Amino acid sequence: MDLNIIEPTLLLHKEKCLQNIKTMSEKAQRNGIIFRPHFKTHQSHEVGRWFREYGVDRITVSSLRMAAYFAQDNWNDIMVAFPVNVLEAQRINNLAATIDLSLIVESTEIIRALQKVLKYKVNLYVKVDIGYHRTGINPENITDIDEMIELIEQEPLTTFKGFLGHGGHSYNSRSNKEIENVHNEGRSIMIKLRKQYAPQYPDLIISIGDTPTCSVMQDFSWTDEMRPGNFVFYDLMQHVIGSCSLDQIALSIACPVVAKHADRGELVIYGGGVHFSKDRIQLDEQNCYGIVIDLDQKNRLIDNESILVKSLSQEHGIISAPEDYIDNKKIGDIVHILPIHSCMASNLLRSYTILDT
Amino acid sequence: MDLNIIEPTLLLHKEKCLQNIKTMSEKAQRNGIIFRPHFKTHQSHEVGRWFREYGVDRITVSSLRMAAYFAQDNWNDIMVAFPVNVLEAQRINNLAATIDLSLIVESTEIIRALQKVLKYKVNLYVKVDIGYHRTGINPENITDIDEMIELIEQEPLTTFKGFLGHGGHSYNSRSNKEIENVHNEGRSIMIKLRKQYAPQYPDLIISIGDTPTCSVMQDFSWTDEMRPGNFVFYDLMQHVIGSCSLDQIALSIACPVVAKHADRGELVIYGGGVHFSKDRIQLDEQNCYGIVIDLDQKNRLIDNESILVKSLSQEHGIISAPEDYIDNKKIGDIVHILPIHSCMASNLLRSYTILDT
Repeated sequence: MDLNIIEPTLLLHKEKCLQNIKTMSEKAQRNGIIFRPHFKTHQSHEVGRWFREYGVDRITVSSLRMAAYFAQDNWNDIMVAFPVNVLEAQRINNLAATIDLSLIVESTEIIRALQKVLKYKVNLYVKVDIGYHRTGINPENITDIDEMIELIEQEPLTTFKGFLGHGGHSYNSRSNKEIENVHNEGRSIMIKLRKQYAPQYPDLIISIGDTPTCSVMQDFSWTDEMRPGNFVFYDLMQHVIGSCSLDQIALSIACPVVAKHADRGELVIYGGGVHFSKDRIQLDEQNCYGIVIDLDQKNRLIDNESILVKSLSQEHGIISAPEDYIDNKKIGDIVHILPIHSCMASNLLRSYTILDT
Repeated sequence: MDLNIIEPTLLLHKEKCLQNIKTMSEKAQRNGIIFRPHFKTHQSHEVGRWFREYGVDRITVSSLRMAAYFAQDNWNDIMVAFPVNVLEAQRINNLAATIDLSLIVESTEIIRALQKVLKYKVNLYVKVDIGYHRTGINPENITDIDEMIELIEQEPLTTFKGFLGHGGHSYNSRSNKEIENVHNEGRSIMIKLRKQYAPQYPDLIISIGDTPTCSVMQDFSWTDEMRPGNFVFYDLMQHVIGSCSLDQIALSIACPVVAKHADRGELVIYGGGVHFSKDRIQLDEQNCYGIVIDLDQKNRLIDNESILVKSLSQEHGIISAPEDYIDNKKIGDIVHILPIHSCMASNLLRSYTILDT
């Protein structure tokens, strides 16, 4: 298959991607919970449609723009998992007029501001801080939570649906044990909240959603919904965390070799911060912006001793490699890089070349 | 002036921007050299046109796509300051057919590959490593340089124009003295090359171009051309390097406040890695992804004790601030952030709201 690559290009390995969707979808099914995948990772109508084959009809996004984009492709149950931005009232109302829109709130201030501008019904989830400390209300703060729910329920256009948590601190994990700790922390918080509020709200939904815990842990019977996003592609960050094997990573970036510097063990590629993003990890005590893999003739990945992208400028990437590897490459050859953060790379490059093999 | 900002928005302070262009243009004039600004920073027809008023008619870009974009707006002398990517032969020929196109080469391998596909005349600059060690030929390697020039001159479609260097290691500087060292390193390399090649090529062009040295140093009489780019906007990175004052930074990003966490001294803004990029600096031993500034009623910047963006997710930014600052902000307020790297933020957000005041 000649891909005719002339510039940095996102290659999407469809089979791996479908397998990732299938695995997560089956895990949700086994637990008897809703699978509401986060679509910020791919931001693509085409990839989104692949989920429909696995019974997905509810999705998560991270902005109202993204919600509008997917609503155009007939997704009609969308959660915007980002603190409500009331300045976008018009977008909220446009969406709420036509789809089942869920928003998240974490203070009475934002609920009041939202209620002032709302013209159509929306579902509200109370965002709870389950240990990440980025957003969300302190789950111990029952007084404020009560006040929020009461405020939501007073007004006919807002409906209290449940509690939403995001254990984003699982990204600091480097072992299954650490991932399990994050999972259990969220679990005990959410079980307590359910106990407190289920008597009054029997249809309460407990929604959680980071890729590491959703990938590694098995028991989600204490939740009602999972919202992982990154798992659809995975990436090196997830591999380092322990969420996936290298072989499950469904996205790579094909980049032309534009210069060789065998004397210092470097290849220069066309592929930089505007293609990969500047996300990085530490690998063997070095900055790593991606690792090089090879593709066989059927476009299957072959690992090759962790040859690293060691630095990135705006358009250039520098690959650190042994002399014989460099000698075997010619200017104009294509190298394949597994990205650190597939969500960011997808957001930058936007269009996918889909490998069907 | 009501800007009606509802989401992360690039604000361009036109007056500062024009002043930055004027200052650099006058420096080039004083030195009697060509001013060939790098347009990768703004990637905007509109901002590009502002340069014309200062006599600029030659520009630099970092990709063939970008060259095509500016050729559409009647720029007809464009240098692509990136190692030639022969896979884009069609784009090269399309451009070379209509404009005065300059490319950079650093090996006989790439010259041969280029000559095989060329259909129209191009100017070639030999890229010399002046200490950055990213790309370029070792300037001591006269045998290879001779061979490259000979190869270029053998073929009627390629013309040898001169030597190009980029002292990108000036970005590691944190004082004028360090910037001066980078400048002097490039200077002595280029003076030596001129001595060697001027007898045979009296029209030889010595081209250099990083923003830190171009901003701080005064004597460029040893060059023929300067190609800085970032100076048009500047940013926090340049401020930390010492290239500009905070007040010269012409670009800020306006972001809505979406949540408040006074208990931990944090504001959550709508504005993350997909708006700012993940570029960061260390400030007071903290990760810093931007600093918050205020705008007065005439949209002039007011510094306010370095309140930092301390972390970024895909769409969220977390601002660390004193309690009274947080108490004074409401959800839905707009905060203004000076970005770490204006080139990357511009590339992500793409459209500017221009402040004329």
